[in-house]
Amino acid sequence: MPETRLDTARIRAARRIIDPIFLDTPLYRCEALEPGLGCAVSVKLETANPVRSFKARGTEVVAGLLAGNGSRAAVCASAGNLGQALAWSGRGRGIDVTVVASRLAPAAKLGRIRALGATLELVDGDIEDARERAAAIAGHDGIRLVEDSLDVETCEGAATIGLELVDTVPSFDAVLIALGGGALATGVGHVMKALAPSVEVICVQPLGAPAMTRSWRERRVVTTDSTDTIADGVAGRHPIPAVLDDLLLVADDAVLVREASIIAGMRMLLDHAGLVVEPSAALGIAAVLEDRDRFAGRHVATVVCGSNVDVAAYHRWVGA
Amino acid sequence: MPETRLDTARIRAARRIIDPIFLDTPLYRCEALEPGLGCAVSVKLETANPVRSFKARGTEVVAGLLAGNGSRAAVCASAGNLGQALAWSGRGRGIDVTVVASRLAPAAKLGRIRALGATLELVDGDIEDARERAAAIAGHDGIRLVEDSLDVETCEGAATIGLELVDTVPSFDAVLIALGGGALATGVGHVMKALAPSVEVICVQPLGAPAMTRSWRERRVVTTDSTDTIADGVAGRHPIPAVLDDLLLVADDAVLVREASIIAGMRMLLDHAGLVVEPSAALGIAAVLEDRDRFAGRHVATVVCGSNVDVAAYHRWVGA
Repeated sequence: MPETRLDTARIRAARRIIDPIFLDTPLYRCEALEPGLGCAVSVKLETANPVRSFKARGTEVVAGLLAGNGSRAAVCASAGNLGQALAWSGRGRGIDVTVVASRLAPAAKLGRIRALGATLELVDGDIEDARERAAAIAGHDGIRLVEDSLDVETCEGAATIGLELVDTVPSFDAVLIALGGGALATGVGHVMKALAPSVEVICVQPLGAPAMTRSWRERRVVTTDSTDTIADGVAGRHPIPAVLDDLLLVADDAVLVREASIIAGMRMLLDHAGLVVEPSAALGIAAVLEDRDRFAGRHVATVVCGSNVDVAAYHRWVGA
Repeated sequence: MPETRLDTARIRAARRIIDPIFLDTPLYRCEALEPGLGCAVSVKLETANPVRSFKARGTEVVAGLLAGNGSRAAVCASAGNLGQALAWSGRGRGIDVTVVASRLAPAAKLGRIRALGATLELVDGDIEDARERAAAIAGHDGIRLVEDSLDVETCEGAATIGLELVDTVPSFDAVLIALGGGALATGVGHVMKALAPSVEVICVQPLGAPAMTRSWRERRVVTTDSTDTIADGVAGRHPIPAVLDDLLLVADDAVLVREASIIAGMRMLLDHAGLVVEPSAALGIAAVLEDRDRFAGRHVATVVCGSNVDVAAYHRWVGA
C-alpha cells in the first residue's frame, strides 16, 4: 500500500461526518453509451445533490472539523464548485464562508455561491490568482484558509467515492478520474490502490490545462503560463508538490484529451444517458473516445463529478 | 389506514427483491428552483439508473416472482418506460419479454426496449390499443400478462419510493406525483397515508390526458376518446377500476396542468437543477407553477419519475 498523505481509516471515518445526502450516490451501467465507446461503462453520478458536484464530500469534512474546533469563519479559492460546497457546508454549521473566484468563472457557479450565503470576492485572472488572494485574506483576517487538494480533508472526503466504487461487484477494470488540483484523483486513487489494487487508475486532464499531467509524467512540478479549455473546473496551472507526490503513488496513468473530445463526451452523456454535465465531468468519456483500443472489451467506471454549467454555453458547445 | 389493495409489509419486503441499483435514489432540496416556485422543493430522482425511470422498482418485483414460479416469458403493454424496465428485469432472470407499444412512442424508448433484448411489437393507436394487443398475445401464447397499475406488484414496487420519502426529516408538507395508470400515485400515496398521514398527496395529470383525474373527481371511471399531450408516459384513456378505488383512498387531490406549464417545468429543471427530464417528470413542478398560492411557504417533494426523452423533441419543447 503506497504511503500517501491519506489514511484509509480516516476516509472511512469521514463517511460519518459527511451529510448522507452526499454519500452513496448512484453507480450504474449506462449500456446506451457502450456501442459508441466499445467498452462497458458505469457512471458514478456526483451531480444529484444540493451543490451538483462531488466537492461537498470534502467540505463536509473540513467544516465538520472547523465547527468542532469552534471556528466561525473560513475562506477558500474556487473555480466555482468548491465554493458552493464550502458555502453549503459552512451555512449549516454557523461558519461564515468567503469564496474568492475568477470573474471569468461560469455565472451559474458564482450565482449559486452567493445564493448559498457566502461572501464572494471576484478577482481578475484565474484560479491561481484567486488562490493568492484567498491566502492574503486568510492571513489578514486570521481565518482558516481551505486549500483544495492540499488540505488532506478535501482529498479524504473525495476518497469516500472510492469506498463506494470498491464495494461494487463485479469490479471495474479501470476508473477514469478528472484531474485538476488532484483531490479527487488522489482520493479515489488511494482507495483503489489500498482496497482494489487491480483496478487501473487513470487520470484525465484537458490538453489545454496539462500542468498536473505533465508534472506526473516528469515526476516534478511543471507549471504553465496559461490554460485554454472549456473545462473550467480543472484548469489549474500550479500543481501542489505534496499532491503530486501522492498522485505519483496512486495513478497508473494520466492522459490529456482534446476539447473536441470533451464536447463529444458531453454530447454522448446527454444523448445516451440523459445527463447534463459540466465539461470536467466528461473527461473520462473523452479519454475512451480518444483511445478506444485501450479500453475495448473492458469495464470502465467514470466519475461524473459536476453539472454546474451555464446553460447557454452548454448548448453552444453540444449544439443541441 | 385506508384499505387499498396494497400492503405495507409487502412493500417493505419488496425492497429485498428489487435490485439495490434502483433503491435509495437521491432525494434533495433544489434551492435554485425555489425563487421561481415560491416554496421549498425537494426532488426524488428516479432517473439515475439503467432504465432512467422508476418503473424497474415494479418490474423487479414482478420478475422476481415470475422467476420464483419458474415462468420463462412475459408480455406487457407499455408507453415505453415499463417495457424497458421489464426487459431489464427479465433479462437478468432468464425471462423472455415481449413489449407491445404504440408506434408513436418516443424513438428513444422503443430503441432501448429493443437494445435490452425484448421482443418489441408496435401497434397503431395508443397505449390502450397496446394493452388490448398485449392481452391477446398473453392469451394466445399462455404467458404472463404484466398489467401496469392493475398488477399490485407494480404498485408495491413503486410504493418503495414512498418508504424512502417518509424516512426524511424534516418531512414534507405535500408530495406531487405524476398520475398515469396510477401505480406510482397509489403506491406512494398508500405509504404516505399509512406512515406519514399529514403529508398531502397530490396527483398531477396533463389537461390533455385527464381520464384518471376526472375519474377521481367523479368517483367513477371516466374514459376519454383521445389524448393530446407531450407527456407520453401518462397518456392513458381507460382508467382501471381497481386502481381508481385505491386512488380514491389515498389521494388528497388530483389536478390537471397545461402543456405550457409542463414545458416551463422541464425548462426550470434544466436551468436550475441541471436535470433533463421527460414531460411526465415535470408534472409536479407544473402544478406548483399553476397554483403558487397553494404552495407558498410550504415544502413540497416531487418525484422526477423518468428521463427517457427524444433529445430533438426535448430541445424543440424547451427551446434550449
